[in-house]
Amino acid sequence: MSYTLAEIAARLGGRVSGDGQVRIRQISTLERAQADQISFLTNRKYAAQLATTKAGAVILAEADADATDLPRIISANPYALFARVSSLLNPLPAIQPGIHASAVISATASIDPSASVAAMAVVGEGAVIGAHTVIGEGCCIGDNVVIGNHVRLYPRVVIYHDCVVGDNLIAHSGVVIGADGFGIAMDEGRWIKIPQIGRVVIGNDVEIGANTTIDRGALDDTVIEDGVKLDNQIQIAHNVRIGAHTAIAGCVGIAGSTTIGKYCQIGGSAGILGHLQIADSVVIASFTLIAKSIREAGSYAAIYPFSKQEEWRKNAVHLRHLDEMAQRLKKMEQEISSLKQDTLKGNTA
Amino acid sequence: MSYTLAEIAARLGGRVSGDGQVRIRQISTLERAQADQISFLTNRKYAAQLATTKAGAVILAEADADATDLPRIISANPYALFARVSSLLNPLPAIQPGIHASAVISATASIDPSASVAAMAVVGEGAVIGAHTVIGEGCCIGDNVVIGNHVRLYPRVVIYHDCVVGDNLIAHSGVVIGADGFGIAMDEGRWIKIPQIGRVVIGNDVEIGANTTIDRGALDDTVIEDGVKLDNQIQIAHNVRIGAHTAIAGCVGIAGSTTIGKYCQIGGSAGILGHLQIADSVVIASFTLIAKSIREAGSYAAIYPFSKQEEWRKNAVHLRHLDEMAQRLKKMEQEISSLKQDTLKGNTA
Amino acid sequence: MSYTLAEIAARLGGRVSGDGQVRIRQISTLERAQADQISFLTNRKYAAQLATTKAGAVILAEADADATDLPRIISANPYALFARVSSLLNPLPAIQPGIHASAVISATASIDPSASVAAMAVVGEGAVIGAHTVIGEGCCIGDNVVIGNHVRLYPRVVIYHDCVVGDNLIAHSGVVIGADGFGIAMDEGRWIKIPQIGRVVIGNDVEIGANTTIDRGALDDTVIEDGVKLDNQIQIAHNVRIGAHTAIAGCVGIAGSTTIGKYCQIGGSAGILGHLQIADSVVIASFTLIAKSIREAGSYAAIYPFSKQEEWRKNAVHLRHLDEMAQRLKKMEQEISSLKQDTLKGNTA
Repeated sequence: MSYTLAEIAARLGGRVSGDGQVRIRQISTLERAQADQISFLTNRKYAAQLATTKAGAVILAEADADATDLPRIISANPYALFARVSSLLNPLPAIQPGIHASAVISATASIDPSASVAAMAVVGEGAVIGAHTVIGEGCCIGDNVVIGNHVRLYPRVVIYHDCVVGDNLIAHSGVVIGADGFGIAMDEGRWIKIPQIGRVVIGNDVEIGANTTIDRGALDDTVIEDGVKLDNQIQIAHNVRIGAHTAIAGCVGIAGSTTIGKYCQIGGSAGILGHLQIADSVVIASFTLIAKSIREAGSYAAIYPFSKQEEWRKNAVHLRHLDEMAQRLKKMEQEISSLKQDTLKGNTA
Repeated sequence: MSYTLAEIAARLGGRVSGDGQVRIRQISTLERAQADQISFLTNRKYAAQLATTKAGAVILAEADADATDLPRIISANPYALFARVSSLLNPLPAIQPGIHASAVISATASIDPSASVAAMAVVGEGAVIGAHTVIGEGCCIGDNVVIGNHVRLYPRVVIYHDCVVGDNLIAHSGVVIGADGFGIAMDEGRWIKIPQIGRVVIGNDVEIGANTTIDRGALDDTVIEDGVKLDNQIQIAHNVRIGAHTAIAGCVGIAGSTTIGKYCQIGGSAGILGHLQIADSVVIASFTLIAKSIREAGSYAAIYPFSKQEEWRKNAVHLRHLDEMAQRLKKMEQEISSLKQDTLKGNTA
Repeated sequence: MSYTLAEIAARLGGRVSGDGQVRIRQISTLERAQADQISFLTNRKYAAQLATTKAGAVILAEADADATDLPRIISANPYALFARVSSLLNPLPAIQPGIHASAVISATASIDPSASVAAMAVVGEGAVIGAHTVIGEGCCIGDNVVIGNHVRLYPRVVIYHDCVVGDNLIAHSGVVIGADGFGIAMDEGRWIKIPQIGRVVIGNDVEIGANTTIDRGALDDTVIEDGVKLDNQIQIAHNVRIGAHTAIAGCVGIAGSTTIGKYCQIGGSAGILGHLQIADSVVIASFTLIAKSIREAGSYAAIYPFSKQEEWRKNAVHLRHLDEMAQRLKKMEQEISSLKQDTLKGNTA
C-alpha cells in the first residue's frame, strides 16, 4: 500500500510544497525514516534532524514551511495530520466475522453477524454485541451487557453483567469493567458489604489502556462520557463520572463519586479524592493529589521536587517543623519591629 | 421481591416510625428514589434532599428521627442498615452447581458437588474447592490450592499452586494470588532469582478488588487475616501480614515483610515500605508513604497540598533550600538576641 | 532431595566450617529452621537469632564467621549464596512437553517440541515458541510473536502481535506486553488515535511481575534490555528503553520515550516523566517523581515525611506560603543588617 504525497494531502488535508509525486509507504521518525517514508516535525527540539533526515517527505507546521527543501505537507495541526497519515498507512487488520468454535456463547446472546468473537471468549445471557465489533481471545462478557458497533476488545477483557458500552470503544488486555465498587460499612467490629447495583456506562469513541479497572456504581451508574481516553493501570471507583474528551495518563486513581469535567488532562500517577467536582479544562500534574474540588479551569500541581538523597534528607527534615519555623519568623518580625523602635529611641535619645 | 417497611425492620433491626405497611422493592439515593424504593440519610450534606425526595421510606439516624414525615426506619447505625437492606433487596444470583463442559479439571482435584466451575476455568492437580463456591470463567486454580466454602471468584482470577483461601472470599477479575515475590540477589553483575517457596494464606470473609496482586512468601507465607477488605489494583509483596478487618483503598503498595495491624484503614495510593510494623487501628491518609514503623494507633499523613501550577512552582523551589532557610533563621535569632543586648546597652549607656 | 553441607559448598561455593556432613533438605529463616534445614544471616538485625536457631547449618559472611558454632558456609556474598542454595533445593517442576488439547494454535505457528502449551492458551499466526518454553493456561500469544528458549509464562499473560522476547523470560500472570501506547492528538475538539506500530523487544534473563504492562512503541520499539527485573503492577509506556540489569519495584510508572540506564534501582511507586535520560547506576527512592534527566550516578529522593495527622496539617499549610516565608526572611536579614549599623552608630554616637 502506498500513496503519493499529493494523494495524502488530498485525502487528509494540508498544503503540498515540493514534489507531490513522491511515493510514501510508511511513517517514521526524522532519525530513522527512509526514502519511501514520510516523517514529521512537531517538537522543535528535533529541528536539527531536518538537515540530515533521509525521509522522502515531511509534515510541518506553517511556521516551519521553509525549514527544509524536502517534499512536504504544511499543516495548521501537524501532530494531528501525523496521526491521520499514520492511520492511513497502518489500517487495522480486517475483521474476520464469525464466532470461534471454542467460544462459549449463551443461547440468549445476540451477536451481529459482522462481529468477530475469538477463541476462548465467553458471552453471557442476553448480551448484545454490535456490528463489526471484535471480542478478543478469552474475553468474558457478562449477562445482559450491551456492546455497540466497531468496538475492539483485545484479549482477556472482562465486562461484568449489565454494563453498557458505546460505539468504537477500544479496550486493551486486562481491562476490567464493572467489578464491584469498594463499598463496605462497619457493623459491630466487622465490615459488611454494600451490594453494588449500579452499572458502568461508557459512551462512544473511548479508549481504555491495559489493566485499567472501572468499577460499577453502588446505586447509580459509573459514567465515562464520549471521547474519554484512559491510559494503562488507571483505577476508577464507583459512581465516578468522567466528562467528554478528558484524557488520563497511566496509574491514576480516582475515588468514588467524583465528577470530572470535559477536556481535562490528568498526569500519570495523580489521584483525586472522592465526592469532588473538577471543572472542565482542568490540567492536573503527575503525582499530584487533588483533595478539594476545583471550580476553575487551569493547571494544578503538587509535586515534591527531587534532589540527591543527602540533600533531600537535610531539607526534608524541616517539613515536620515548618509551623515552628513560621512562628519563629513571626516572632522575629515583632522583635525587629520593636528593636527598630528602641534603636530609633536610642539614637534620638 | 418486595417487603413492607415493618418486615424489613423486623428482619434487620431499627425502629419504624410512620406507615410500616409501605411496600419496598429497591433501594436508591434520596435524589432518585421512587415510591416503591427506600432511601437513606447517612451524610448530613444531603439532608436538604429529605424535603424533596420521592422515596417511599427512609433510613435515618436517631438524631434525624424527626427530620422527615416519611415512613422511616431509625437506626443506631444507619449506614450498616442501608448495607443490610440493600443486600436483602439485591441477593446474589443463585449458584448453578456443576462444572462447565469446557473447564479443564485435573483428575486429582476435589470439587464439592455444590460448587460451580464456569467455562474455560482450569483446576490443577490436588486442588480442593469447597461447598457453594463459584469459580468464574477463565479462572486458573493452581496445583494443591485449597479454597473454602461460599467463595466467589469472578472471571480470570489466578491462584498459584499451594495457596490457601478461607470461606466467603470474594475475588474480582484480574486478581493474582501467589505470584512470585520480588526476590533477587546481585551476584557478580547479574541478578539471580531467589525461589519463592512460601504460600499466600487468606482467612475468612476477605474481599479483593479487581487486578489486585498478592505475592507468595519467599520462605514463610504471606498472610491476609479474616475480614480484610482490599480495593482494586493493590500490590501486596511477599511475606506481608495484614491484620484482621483492615481495609485498604485502591492503588496502595505494601513492600515485603511488613506487618499491618488489625482494624487499620489505608487511603488510596498510599505506600508502606518493607520490614515495618504498623500497630492496630492506624489510619493512613491517601498518597502517604510510611517509611518507619508506627507503634501507636492514630491518623498519619504526608500529603503535599496542591495549588495552581504557578503558585506551586514559586513555592516548591524552596523545598530544596529549607535547610539553608532554617540556618538563616537560626543565625537571625542569634543576631536579634545580640542586637537586643546592644540596644539595651546603648539605651542605658 | 538432600545434600550434605560439603556437597552444597562444592557445587555453589563458600568455605565450610564445622561438620560438613550435616544433611540439608530445605532452606528457612533462623527463626523457623529445623535440624535438616539451612538458614542464613544477611541482615545484622537478626544476629541475635543465631544463638537460638534450630537450623542444622547457616550461611554467613566472612565477618560473622565466628558468630556461631553451627556447621556453616562462609561466603563473600552470603545473600547470593542463599539464593543459589534455595534454587538448588527448590528446582522448578519439570516441564511436560506438548500442547494441551484445549489450546488453540494457528496452523502457521511454530512451537518447539520440547515446549509446553497449557490449557486454554491461544497462539497466533506465524508465532515462534522456543525450546523448553512454557506457555501457561490461558495465555494469548499474538501473531508473529517470537519467544525464546526456557521462557516461562504463567497463566493469562498476553503478548500482542510482533513482539519479541529473549531467552529465560519469566512473566507472571496478568502481564500485558505490547498493548498500544497512549498516543493521541487533539484535532478540532476530539482526540484522534496515533497508531502504535512499534513493538516491544525484550532481552534475555528478564523477569516481569504480575499485572505489569509494557506498551509497544509508537513508531520505534519499546526495549527492555538483558537482565532487567520488574516487580508487579509496573507501567512502562511506549518507546521507553530500560538498561540491562536495572531492577524496578512495584507500582512504578515510566512515561513515554524515557531511557533508563544500566544497573539502576527504582523504588516502589516512583515515577519518571517522559522524554528523560537517566544515567547508569542511578538509585531512585520510593514515591519519588523524577521530572528532569539525571546525568550522574547516585541516589535521588523526594519523599514527603509522614507525621501524625494534626502535625501534618499544621505544617503542610505553610507549603503554600514558602515563597512568602522566603521573602520575609530576606527582608528581615536586610533589616537586621541595617539595625546593626544603626545600633553601632547609636552605641558609638
